Amino acid sequence: MHPTRWGDPAQAGPLPSATRELVELAFGVHDTTVAEGAALPAPGLAESVLADLRAVLGDEHVRTDDESRRLRTRGKSTPDLLRARAGDLTDAPDAVVRPGDHDDVVALLEVAVRHHVAVVPFGGGTSVTGGLVARREGYAGVVSLDLGRLTAVREIDEVSMTAVLEPGLRGPEAEARLAEHRLTLGHYPQSFEFATIGGFAATRSSGQSSAGYGRFDALVVGLTVATPQGTWELGTSPANAAGPDLRQLVLGSEGAFGVITAVRVRVRRLPAERVYEGWQFGSFAAGTEAIRTLAQAGARSGLMPTVLRLSDESETALNLASQSDVGGAAADGGCLMIVGHEGADVADRRAAVTAALEAAGGTPLGEERGAAWEQGRFHAPYLRDSMLDVGVTVETLETATFWSRVPQVYAAVRQALAGTLGERAIVLCHVSHVYETGCSLYFTVAVPGGDDPVEQWRSAKSAATEAMVAAGATITHHHAVGTDHRPWLEREIGPLGVRVLRAVKDELDPTGVLNPGVLVP
Amino acid sequence: MHPTRWGDPAQAGPLPSATRELVELAFGVHDTTVAEGAALPAPGLAESVLADLRAVLGDEHVRTDDESRRLRTRGKSTPDLLRARAGDLTDAPDAVVRPGDHDDVVALLEVAVRHHVAVVPFGGGTSVTGGLVARREGYAGVVSLDLGRLTAVREIDEVSMTAVLEPGLRGPEAEARLAEHRLTLGHYPQSFEFATIGGFAATRSSGQSSAGYGRFDALVVGLTVATPQGTWELGTSPANAAGPDLRQLVLGSEGAFGVITAVRVRVRRLPAERVYEGWQFGSFAAGTEAIRTLAQAGARSGLMPTVLRLSDESETALNLASQSDVGGAAADGGCLMIVGHEGADVADRRAAVTAALEAAGGTPLGEERGAAWEQGRFHAPYLRDSMLDVGVTVETLETATFWSRVPQVYAAVRQALAGTLGERAIVLCHVSHVYETGCSLYFTVAVPGGDDPVEQWRSAKSAATEAMVAAGATITHHHAVGTDHRPWLEREIGPLGVRVLRAVKDELDPTGVLNPGVLVP
Repeated sequence: MHPTRWGDPAQAGPLPSATRELVELAFGVHDTTVAEGAALPAPGLAESVLADLRAVLGDEHVRTDDESRRLRTRGKSTPDLLRARAGDLTDAPDAVVRPGDHDDVVALLEVAVRHHVAVVPFGGGTSVTGGLVARREGYAGVVSLDLGRLTAVREIDEVSMTAVLEPGLRGPEAEARLAEHRLTLGHYPQSFEFATIGGFAATRSSGQSSAGYGRFDALVVGLTVATPQGTWELGTSPANAAGPDLRQLVLGSEGAFGVITAVRVRVRRLPAERVYEGWQFGSFAAGTEAIRTLAQAGARSGLMPTVLRLSDESETALNLASQSDVGGAAADGGCLMIVGHEGADVADRRAAVTAALEAAGGTPLGEERGAAWEQGRFHAPYLRDSMLDVGVTVETLETATFWSRVPQVYAAVRQALAGTLGERAIVLCHVSHVYETGCSLYFTVAVPGGDDPVEQWRSAKSAATEAMVAAGATITHHHAVGTDHRPWLEREIGPLGVRVLRAVKDELDPTGVLNPGVLVP
Repeated sequence: MHPTRWGDPAQAGPLPSATRELVELAFGVHDTTVAEGAALPAPGLAESVLADLRAVLGDEHVRTDDESRRLRTRGKSTPDLLRARAGDLTDAPDAVVRPGDHDDVVALLEVAVRHHVAVVPFGGGTSVTGGLVARREGYAGVVSLDLGRLTAVREIDEVSMTAVLEPGLRGPEAEARLAEHRLTLGHYPQSFEFATIGGFAATRSSGQSSAGYGRFDALVVGLTVATPQGTWELGTSPANAAGPDLRQLVLGSEGAFGVITAVRVRVRRLPAERVYEGWQFGSFAAGTEAIRTLAQAGARSGLMPTVLRLSDESETALNLASQSDVGGAAADGGCLMIVGHEGADVADRRAAVTAALEAAGGTPLGEERGAAWEQGRFHAPYLRDSMLDVGVTVETLETATFWSRVPQVYAAVRQALAGTLGERAIVLCHVSHVYETGCSLYFTVAVPGGDDPVEQWRSAKSAATEAMVAAGATITHHHAVGTDHRPWLEREIGPLGVRVLRAVKDELDPTGVLNPGVLVP
C-alpha cells in the first residue's frame, strides 16, 4: 500500500455523492493537494551492514530502492497518511529485508544485533497506532523486516481443528487456503484485506465476527518466535496450569520481544449458512441493554450471534443518510444494530435471538440492511482517503470497559473529543465486540482539517485517551499500543507492569534492536 | 487440615466395604501404622524477626505454636501424606502469619525482605504438587502467609456480572456469599471444600463444571497483587490490546511473583435447573469421539453441556463395582460418561445433546447414575486416606493435549505407569475438561505401597511426566507446577520461557523471598 492511501487504488474512487453532500453540508469542501512525489531520505545503512544482510538472504531480498522503502513507511493512522500527504517520509526504513523462513529471521536478528540496527517487523502495514515507526536515534539504521515470503500453511489438523500458519499470510489468503479444507478462521477485522496472521497475533486483533469466533488471541494455541536470544516455541495443549500462560505474553508484544514466525490457531468448519440482518432500537442505551442481555445469557444458551454491532444515534443517522434508503419508515431515527448468524444450521439460534431482541424492544429491519453492512464492511478506510482528499480529517479510536461503566465512558470520550475539536466535529460511536462482562466502544471522528491537522488530531486523541483512563477503561481494545498509545500504557498496567515488560524485553532483546520505541515505555 | 489426611475426619471413615473387597482382591490389605504424633523441628526464626512481624500484625496473628505450624506443613499430594504419616514434618514453617488486609501483606513482605525470610502464601493448603514446600537453605527461616483473614466480598456488580473477591474465601464460602445475590462462580474442583479463591487464581485451577463455566483463569478479569516492589493492579476491561495480557502472567504464578490479594471474577446467575445423567459408550475411543463432537460443534450451537466427563474402561469398571448397582444391564462394560446441564432452562440444550450423543452411539443410563456422581464428586481424597490406611498408595496425575494426540498420550502414560509400578498397579483414566482443540486426561493410580512408597511413586510420576513431554502434551492441565513438576517446566516452555520467568521474578521479587524453589526453575 502507498503511504498516503489505503489499499487498492481501484477501490478508492472519489467520495460517494451521498456522503459528499453530507460532508459539504457539515464542513464545506476544499480539495487538498497531495504531495505524492515526496523525496525519501537517503538510505543510511553502512555497506558492511548491507553486505552482512545480503550474505544471509541473497541480494534480491535486501532492498534499498525508493519504492520498497516508501511502501514500508509508517502505517495507516490518519496522522501517518497526513504526514505522507505533506511530503514527510522521514520515517522510511533504510532497507527492506525479506526473510524466506524462520532460520532466516534468526540469522537476520543476529546481524541486526551485531551492527545495532533497529528491526521493524512488517506484515500488512496496517497499524493505526504508530506500530511501524521505530526510534532511529542511537541505532546504525532501521530495517523493515517484511514477512511477505513466510506464507506457508504448515499443518492442518482436522481432528484437533487447528492449523499452523505462517505470519505473512494476509487475511484473504489465509481464508482461501483454509477454505480448500472447508475450514475458516472467522477473523475479519476492518484491515482484513491487507493485514496478516503475524500482525493479528502481535497486536491482539479483534474481528467483526468476534462474538461468534472470538478475538484472535483466543484463537491462538501455539506460537513460534524468533528472538535475538534464539527460538522460542510455546503451546503443548489448549490450556494448562504449567505456570503463567506465556503465549499471552507473546500475543500483543508488537514485535518488541521477537518476531512471530508461526502460529497454531483454532479453526472451524466453513459455515454452510450466513445471514446478516438489521435491527432498530429506540436509543443507544436500549440497544446496549439488549446486547448485554444476549452476551450474558448467550454464553450458556446459544443465544450469541456471530456478528453483533450497535451504532449510536449519530452513526445510525449518518449511515442511513449515506446509503440508499433501505428499511423505509422503520429506519427513521434510533439506533441500528447489525446481527449476523453463521453456522451449519442457524435457524434455531436466529429464532432465539430474534425473540430476545424483540423482547428487548427491537424492531427487525430485515436482511437488506444486513447485506448493506456486509458489502461495506471493509470499506471505511477507503472512504477516509476520499474524505482526506477533500480536506476532512477522519480518524477512529476505541476502548473497552465493563458494562456498568459503559454510559460514563461513552459520555466522557465524546465530551473529550467535542471539547478539543469544537462544535463542527462529528463524533460517531458503535459497539462491535461484546463479552459477558463488558464491551468495546469504537469512535469515528470527522472534522475539517485545520492549519495543522496532525496536531489537531493529536490533541483530540490525547484528551480522549485521558478520558478513557480516568473512567477506568482500557486505552485500546484492539488497535494495540504502538507509539501512539505508549504514553498511557503505564496508566493501564501500572509502574510494575511497565517494569515487567522492560524485564522481559531486556531478557529476550538485551540490545534493544526489536521495534525500539514501540509498546514498551 | 491435618498433614496426614484430607479434610474433615468425620467424613473420612474406613474404606467402604465394596471398595475394600476390590482392594483385597487386587492387593491384599495390611493396615499401616500412622505416625500421628510426630515432632516438629524447633521453630528457627530469630526473635528480632518475630518482633518485626508482630509489630505489623499484632501478637495474635504471628503464631509459632505446634498446631498452627503442623496444619500448614506441605500440601496434600500422596507423597506429602506419606511423609507426614512417616513422622517427617521437616518442612513445617517456622511461623504462621495471618495478615488482615492487603496493606498488611505489603508490610509483611517488607519485613520478609529485610530479614531474608522465605514466604509461602497459604490458602486452602490443598496443593498436590509441592507448591507449599519452599526451599529453606539460604533463608533466615520460612513463614506460612495464611490468607484466611482476607475473606471479604469487596464488590458485586450485577450489571457487569463481576465480583471482587478476597483470596482467603474457600469455595463453599464464596459460593454462599454469591448465592445471597443469586450469583455463582460455577467453579468446582475436587478440592472445592477447602481450596480458596487465591489458590484457584495462583494455580490456574479448573473445576468439574469447566465445560460450562470455564477454567478459573477464564473467569478472572482483574487482579490486585502485593509484591516486594509494591502493589500491582491489573484489569480495566474484559479484553484489550494494550500489549501482552499481564493478568495471564499473574495467573499461575503460584506465589512466586507476588501475593494475590483480590480478584475480579466473572459471575453468572445461579442456575434454576441442574441435571446430571450417565451415558454408556462401547469404548473410551468411541466416548472420546463423542466428546470431541460436542466440544467442536457445541461452541457455536449451544451443544456444550455444563459437565462433561468420560471414564475409561478400567475406571468405569471400578466405579460400577464400588457403587450399588445403578443402571442395571446397560452398565455392563464399556465406558461411563457423565453429562450435566445447568441453567435457567436446560430442556432444549439437553435434547440437543441427547440427540448428538445417541447419534454418536451412546446409551443413556439415566439420572441415578448422574446423581451418584454428583454425590461423590468431592470424595476421592477421603477415599485415598482410607486406602493409605490399608497400605495402598493412591495418587493422581493429569495432562492435556490436542485431540489428534489423545490416543498416543493416553497409551504412553499408561505404559509408563504400568512399566514402573508393575503388574499389580491399577491405572484408571478419565477426561474431565474439554476444549474445541483438545482435552485433559486425568489418571488415578492405585498400587500396594512398597518398602519406600514415596520413592516408588516418585519414579512412576517421573516416567509418566517424561511420557507426557515426549508425546507433546502438557506436564499439568490443572494441578500447577509446584516443586514436583518444576524439573520438567523447561521442557514445556523452553529455555527462553524459563529465562523470562526468572526475569519477571527478579523484577518483582529481587531478593527471592517469595515461595523459593516453587514454579521457577
